[in-house]
Amino acid sequence: MPTYRAPVDDALFLLNDVFHFDRYGNLPGFADASPDTVEAILGEAAKFSEEVLTPLNRVGDKEGCTRHADGSVTTPKGFKQAYKQLVDGGWVGISAPAEYGGQGLPTTLTGMVMEFMCSANMAFAMYPGLTQGATAALAAHGSDALKKIYLPKMVSGEWTGTMNLTEPHCGTDLGLLRTKAAPQPDGSYKITGTKIFISAGEHDLAENIVHLVLARIEGAPEGTKGISLFVVPKIFPKDDGSLGERNAVACGSLEEKMGIHGNSTCVMNYDGATGWLIGEANRGLHAMFTMMNEARMGVGIQGLALSEVAYQNAAAYAKERLQGRSLSGGKYKDKPADPIIVHPDLRRTLLTIKAFNEAARALVTWTALQGDVAHRSGDDKQRQAADDHMGLLTPVIKGVLTDGGFANSVMAQQVFGGHGYIAEHGMEQFVRDARIAQIYEGANGIQALDLVGRKLGKDGGRAMMAFFNEVSGYIKERSGSEAMKPYVTPLSAALGHLQQASMWFMQNAMGKPDNAGAGATDYMHLFGLVALGYMWCRIAEAAQAKLPKANGSSPRYSAKLVTARFFMERMLPETATHLARIQAGAASTMESPDEAF
Amino acid sequence: MPTYRAPVDDALFLLNDVFHFDRYGNLPGFADASPDTVEAILGEAAKFSEEVLTPLNRVGDKEGCTRHADGSVTTPKGFKQAYKQLVDGGWVGISAPAEYGGQGLPTTLTGMVMEFMCSANMAFAMYPGLTQGATAALAAHGSDALKKIYLPKMVSGEWTGTMNLTEPHCGTDLGLLRTKAAPQPDGSYKITGTKIFISAGEHDLAENIVHLVLARIEGAPEGTKGISLFVVPKIFPKDDGSLGERNAVACGSLEEKMGIHGNSTCVMNYDGATGWLIGEANRGLHAMFTMMNEARMGVGIQGLALSEVAYQNAAAYAKERLQGRSLSGGKYKDKPADPIIVHPDLRRTLLTIKAFNEAARALVTWTALQGDVAHRSGDDKQRQAADDHMGLLTPVIKGVLTDGGFANSVMAQQVFGGHGYIAEHGMEQFVRDARIAQIYEGANGIQALDLVGRKLGKDGGRAMMAFFNEVSGYIKERSGSEAMKPYVTPLSAALGHLQQASMWFMQNAMGKPDNAGAGATDYMHLFGLVALGYMWCRIAEAAQAKLPKANGSSPRYSAKLVTARFFMERMLPETATHLARIQAGAASTMESPDEAF
Repeated sequence: MPTYRAPVDDALFLLNDVFHFDRYGNLPGFADASPDTVEAILGEAAKFSEEVLTPLNRVGDKEGCTRHADGSVTTPKGFKQAYKQLVDGGWVGISAPAEYGGQGLPTTLTGMVMEFMCSANMAFAMYPGLTQGATAALAAHGSDALKKIYLPKMVSGEWTGTMNLTEPHCGTDLGLLRTKAAPQPDGSYKITGTKIFISAGEHDLAENIVHLVLARIEGAPEGTKGISLFVVPKIFPKDDGSLGERNAVACGSLEEKMGIHGNSTCVMNYDGATGWLIGEANRGLHAMFTMMNEARMGVGIQGLALSEVAYQNAAAYAKERLQGRSLSGGKYKDKPADPIIVHPDLRRTLLTIKAFNEAARALVTWTALQGDVAHRSGDDKQRQAADDHMGLLTPVIKGVLTDGGFANSVMAQQVFGGHGYIAEHGMEQFVRDARIAQIYEGANGIQALDLVGRKLGKDGGRAMMAFFNEVSGYIKERSGSEAMKPYVTPLSAALGHLQQASMWFMQNAMGKPDNAGAGATDYMHLFGLVALGYMWCRIAEAAQAKLPKANGSSPRYSAKLVTARFFMERMLPETATHLARIQAGAASTMESPDEAF
Repeated sequence: MPTYRAPVDDALFLLNDVFHFDRYGNLPGFADASPDTVEAILGEAAKFSEEVLTPLNRVGDKEGCTRHADGSVTTPKGFKQAYKQLVDGGWVGISAPAEYGGQGLPTTLTGMVMEFMCSANMAFAMYPGLTQGATAALAAHGSDALKKIYLPKMVSGEWTGTMNLTEPHCGTDLGLLRTKAAPQPDGSYKITGTKIFISAGEHDLAENIVHLVLARIEGAPEGTKGISLFVVPKIFPKDDGSLGERNAVACGSLEEKMGIHGNSTCVMNYDGATGWLIGEANRGLHAMFTMMNEARMGVGIQGLALSEVAYQNAAAYAKERLQGRSLSGGKYKDKPADPIIVHPDLRRTLLTIKAFNEAARALVTWTALQGDVAHRSGDDKQRQAADDHMGLLTPVIKGVLTDGGFANSVMAQQVFGGHGYIAEHGMEQFVRDARIAQIYEGANGIQALDLVGRKLGKDGGRAMMAFFNEVSGYIKERSGSEAMKPYVTPLSAALGHLQQASMWFMQNAMGKPDNAGAGATDYMHLFGLVALGYMWCRIAEAAQAKLPKANGSSPRYSAKLVTARFFMERMLPETATHLARIQAGAASTMESPDEAF
């Protein structure tokens, strides 16, 4: 059985020492998040994740969800009780507006709590995760009347949310969608169509489910400019807030899938179901993107979360499994063999994951803080800068953290040898669960295109330039520091590669967009490496600042410095390959006719 | 449902045009392998794989194997009939010695047939694959009496084989193994112990199962020098060849695993089972390694096979799935959207897999031919050179082709978006099946250590120098060729990186073996890239020679040249990163204490 211990200390180190959470005290909600409160919240979330959710992870995978003849769906044994604890603990709405019953705390904290819960049980954590996304879309775009009806119940977690985009013939290209919305005299719409891959579409955890559904109003334009967003409750709320009749929406079947078995992935049939418009007609994609951006950050966090829990189990196994002797002579001579952690290739594996996780957690924290600034600051300029950062980093976090999350889960599984392939140790489940994060909320190739095709050039490249300026300014300020040299020197080279790649796109992809498309995935990973490298510099600097207070000796901060060096020496050099690939251009990629494949 | 079409044309192109199979006509068995015969054999193998094995692949995954209360195991529906066809077709023994009923054809052909079968149904193909490995070990090391009893039945496939190495506490480090062998007055041994992860350990396909079992004879030395190899039949053969009584060996349970569900992976209990020594006492590992080397090549082929079938399905889906429009303007204006193959990132994905597959198939073919030379040539020097090649390339083929096979299956799955995550299309099964190949027959980290720690320096580096000389000689000979320049120039740079890395090990790892260990995996992949790059040069040259005969225009050979360029521009540059990682050394990898993980 896999185990999990939430990295509360690392989260606190990031908040307190790396990103100086206290400097954001003037933002609404941050005053309530004193260091003690934050520590208490993270401690409680850790406990819930470790003690309640972790033991249910294997059960959820093995048992999966069951659809009954009446279309109802039962979640795995134990999920319902755990969900009740989640609601009772107020976890769903910790960052939701107080007016709807939320605690209004920074979303940065919600991100951290989500990491813990996803590490413990990703399939379970998706239920509140989707609710949070739906809540955000409704809060941003819904009418006051809709908000009053739905938000309090969603913020409390009594009702859960879903997002309904995909149809059998359309996923990425939503312009093709066919689900219809017929206007009714009372201002509502009758929604008809089939949606697939709907996570948490039907289940027994909550008394009601609030579906956000993309559909085309009769007579609306073709393509993406004729799509509207609707709220379609499973059960109609009555005026007094109690539940009334059932709406004409039902789960047609459950998808048989590779992983996240504990989450019900549904085919949803809308058979003239009643819905209400969210925001303006034909502006549904705009409203949905509010939800998508939150969701993409959330999915990036899932990647990190699985990488973290897979790492912890691999590290524990590596210290326990005895096999062979160290290349430089036996290290544990009292044992029949050395634990496999003595082997350099094994340590390389573990450090690769560790170096990713700790920087990824920093990147999420930094960006989530910017998200809080973007939503809460009273200063227009600050808000805009923070929003730029969010827009630029969201596809990077989604794409790079989920690609890394999967690759790292696979590497952690490899540490177990044959034992990693059998279900017992839970490692193969992490791999299967991590895989979906690369696919949903926009497959990672789409994230790369979003970054290269839209985010880079947006507003004359303002966000990109701000990011480059921040990193290069940071490097420049430390140019005289011997202590920081091992970190900023490699970062500087990597940033140079990123700038060269950006320049190459400017010069070669304006007229030939295929050159951008063919290099997009490499660019996203190059960007991710630079961002993670920058995080390692920030972490190393904070660790160096802590060391003297620990009389120069602290296993924890010393490990940060070693891991930072490992990242610089072993992981960051990959930027050169990404640059070479980008600069190769699209010629050989595009030359063969389609039939040659 | 996934489909499969065996790449017979590509196999014939490799044999006839790239590696000039006809030049090996003087080797025993090769005379029988005329071009027509080879084409007929591959055609029949293709048909069997496509029509019989492919339809059983999903069934095998879904249904898996079932162990009954009496310890017997049933394979998935249809496997038994398919296995009968396999035996009736004489497929198991096509390369086995004629004296035991085999056809004595080159093992190069067996490798190709195995690729087809593994693409179609890896879990099924493992049954004959293991039998072939066990046959090889028994043929090389068994007494005449044992060979006479067992080989004819194994060569025909009437009986299947297994290899029993792993125990719960020992896999990589066989020195720890505990299974005991007690000598009996009649020269046999009583074997007692538990073996785990035994593929094809018990099943209903064949009337008997021949277990090759590693065990320690009572009183034998500790460690690897006290291990012997035994043959332990499930049912005792009588002197007339008919089956007698049951031996004391039984399947205790089936492992619940990530993939290859159609293959029965057993815990095998030996409870005083009667076995006979193969080869010398205490020299069991030596004998087992005959089997292991064959098996490692076979596992490398599995990696290629899954990459190939995953590619074929992804390419078909990419040409069929309509979503979005080409970045450079719609290409299929009569359709509601373009097929996704127009998108550069999608083509990059497909070409990455294709460029791997075609070169990997060449590498396997080249090395299998050397294997035939090593076993069949009458010339000592030729045999030695071929054996050197095999020894050097076996870990590269196992490690690189299975890492690539898995990564490529994942990329092919990604082409399907959400549809790749659900079971229906079969893509997620390819991923789960491909994963085991990185683990079994020596996890890939062990392959890397074998390459760096044993194969490089063996016989004063003779095999390595021969490989370097062959590649650099090839490059030099083409230095004046404009046509070959786009291929040999990048290969020359990559070879330079490999030579620098080898030199770095010589200078830095002799006294500090950790420097070798920390760089081993990168070295293996660097080596693999150079080997695949060399294969692309050979392929490109052969394609160029074919083009004039096709009046300069041949979609097939033109595609070879484009794919070769893609490999050189997009995949080979990674050698620089591997070199940088190797040269970073082991310092940051080894510095932290074990507790820091």
